[in-house]
Amino acid sequence: MSHSHINVKDDEVDIVIAALRSDLTSFLNEWRPIFSRFHLIIVQDPDLKEELHLSEGFNIDIYKKSDIDRIVGSSSSTVFTGYSCRYFGFLVSQKKYIVSIDDDCMPAKDKDGSLVDVVAQHISNLATPATPFFFNTLYDPFRKGADFVRGYPFSLRTGVTCALSCGLWLNLADYDAPTQALKGGQRNSRYVDAVLTVPARALMPLSGINIAFDRELVGPTLFPAFRLAKEGKFRWETVEDIWSGMCAKVICDHLGLGVKSGLPYVWRTERGNAIDSLKKEWEGVKLMEEVVPFFQSVRLNREIVKTEDCVLEVAKQVKEQLGQSDPVFTRAAEAMVEWVKLWKEVGSS
Amino acid sequence: MSHSHINVKDDEVDIVIAALRSDLTSFLNEWRPIFSRFHLIIVQDPDLKEELHLSEGFNIDIYKKSDIDRIVGSSSSTVFTGYSCRYFGFLVSQKKYIVSIDDDCMPAKDKDGSLVDVVAQHISNLATPATPFFFNTLYDPFRKGADFVRGYPFSLRTGVTCALSCGLWLNLADYDAPTQALKGGQRNSRYVDAVLTVPARALMPLSGINIAFDRELVGPTLFPAFRLAKEGKFRWETVEDIWSGMCAKVICDHLGLGVKSGLPYVWRTERGNAIDSLKKEWEGVKLMEEVVPFFQSVRLNREIVKTEDCVLEVAKQVKEQLGQSDPVFTRAAEAMVEWVKLWKEVGSS
Repeated sequence: MSHSHINVKDDEVDIVIAALRSDLTSFLNEWRPIFSRFHLIIVQDPDLKEELHLSEGFNIDIYKKSDIDRIVGSSSSTVFTGYSCRYFGFLVSQKKYIVSIDDDCMPAKDKDGSLVDVVAQHISNLATPATPFFFNTLYDPFRKGADFVRGYPFSLRTGVTCALSCGLWLNLADYDAPTQALKGGQRNSRYVDAVLTVPARALMPLSGINIAFDRELVGPTLFPAFRLAKEGKFRWETVEDIWSGMCAKVICDHLGLGVKSGLPYVWRTERGNAIDSLKKEWEGVKLMEEVVPFFQSVRLNREIVKTEDCVLEVAKQVKEQLGQSDPVFTRAAEAMVEWVKLWKEVGSS
Repeated sequence: MSHSHINVKDDEVDIVIAALRSDLTSFLNEWRPIFSRFHLIIVQDPDLKEELHLSEGFNIDIYKKSDIDRIVGSSSSTVFTGYSCRYFGFLVSQKKYIVSIDDDCMPAKDKDGSLVDVVAQHISNLATPATPFFFNTLYDPFRKGADFVRGYPFSLRTGVTCALSCGLWLNLADYDAPTQALKGGQRNSRYVDAVLTVPARALMPLSGINIAFDRELVGPTLFPAFRLAKEGKFRWETVEDIWSGMCAKVICDHLGLGVKSGLPYVWRTERGNAIDSLKKEWEGVKLMEEVVPFFQSVRLNREIVKTEDCVLEVAKQVKEQLGQSDPVFTRAAEAMVEWVKLWKEVGSS
């Protein structure tokens, strides 16, 4: 099966970039062949005081601290610092699809040396069905040249709507600080030419570096809620995306939506010193030992059918089941409730 | 993480080949660089009356109809016809690991043009841990150059024993007859350089074309039990491997063992006419609609800890839950019980 026509128009897509550094000119110039057709939302980390340097020739809306304060109020705006400023872009977007790429990523090349069109691949992942209820050993059956293998039930071949697409990274992979510190020289050079649906009820660590999603379907599930006490400005010092990713996966499973992982790749460049980060990161690493079993046990009542209500129900279970263990969980539950409130006020408008 | 030393000796491996045609000389010559170090078990399809033609220079034990009759008795021997003759090889092997490849497969080449060492890759898959409880987005973390990504719980990084490795196919993929008939010209040319653990509780259609397994752990779960009324001598006319594969996966999940899929590839050559097979295949295709939901619902009591006992329990549930629907299911359940009996008599000796 292959879907030769993806009927998604350029104006149905927002590209959201979190600006953690002021000079985005080389970033934008490298991405120009891919991004210039689309509307960009750049959200400046409120902690970044310098003026942004951008390139000409893009259709960009920029949001700074003053914009964030104005739109959500200064009491709510604190959640949108550091890597989490991107979520403000998710909130104010009016488009069906969002593609979000970290500002330390450049376009990757595929096996033939061609530039990877990260937007086209993410949109293809989202616009073709996902198959979460049975694993197809030849990966995404909707890619050109692929299909369902022998034994795959025909009744499951129509698949379900794909709501979330998680891309990968060449060069510097998204490891945690201990792994990065231990294997400082390790680089990811393996280009795996595959997209797959993460099976229903299987959880994975969603990395926010390179993702796309159907904002109308799962926008409310991607939020900044799980903030480490010593959260920093490097990816390996954050786990907010891992947390919301597990929440999104649980809710997709509940609502019968699909999550894909694999292509497209981005080329990730180096920033930061993993050894300096080690003392901070252990907090996140330790907390994962409780977070994963919790999300594996989450069950949502069948009557809950709206995405926002699913998030509220997960927040309730977080508070009840993890709240006693560490205040970070209670804060996360409260931030999830606050996010749904913001989404209803700002995001659905 | 990478395991540079795989401590598996050549004499711990049996290569089992089902001979469905008499001339295996070109098959063996092509595989010589890879197979010649190992002990081969060739089981001749009892329906194939001609003498086998083999190549010199291999360490081969051949089993023919007379051997099968002698060892299991002529009443049990009928299950070992066609593609199912390979299971007799699984039964009489004395080795820890079995690699089984269809006789219409040739060695594939990897992306660099090197011959794929199917045995080395399967054994590497089996000898390194599997990670069924959380999906690692960079695929098998135990491959060279790969690791666990940020957010992967450390407590799950030791993984579990991998018991079953399912390889894939270049050129002619393992499609069913309708797909093959509809897309007669479609060839699989995508070399996906990945191995992954199929997550716990996710089922997949195991293809028997190119597999390896730990015989001591899961040998009793790979059996010829699900025989279509009009089963033929082409892969797309059989589903016996799909059935036993789902049984194996359910039992691996229950016992905390892993199943991997992906590398190694074999190059699969053409045989048969899919359009001729269409009238037979629909039987298997239709039955899958009942088979998959059944296996998705199978739950085994915690007290059942022996693989043989798991098979007997699944057989019991097959009889109870599917027996009324089609006599093929009752026969499958009985064949599973018979297999366990044979395994205890022959296979464990």
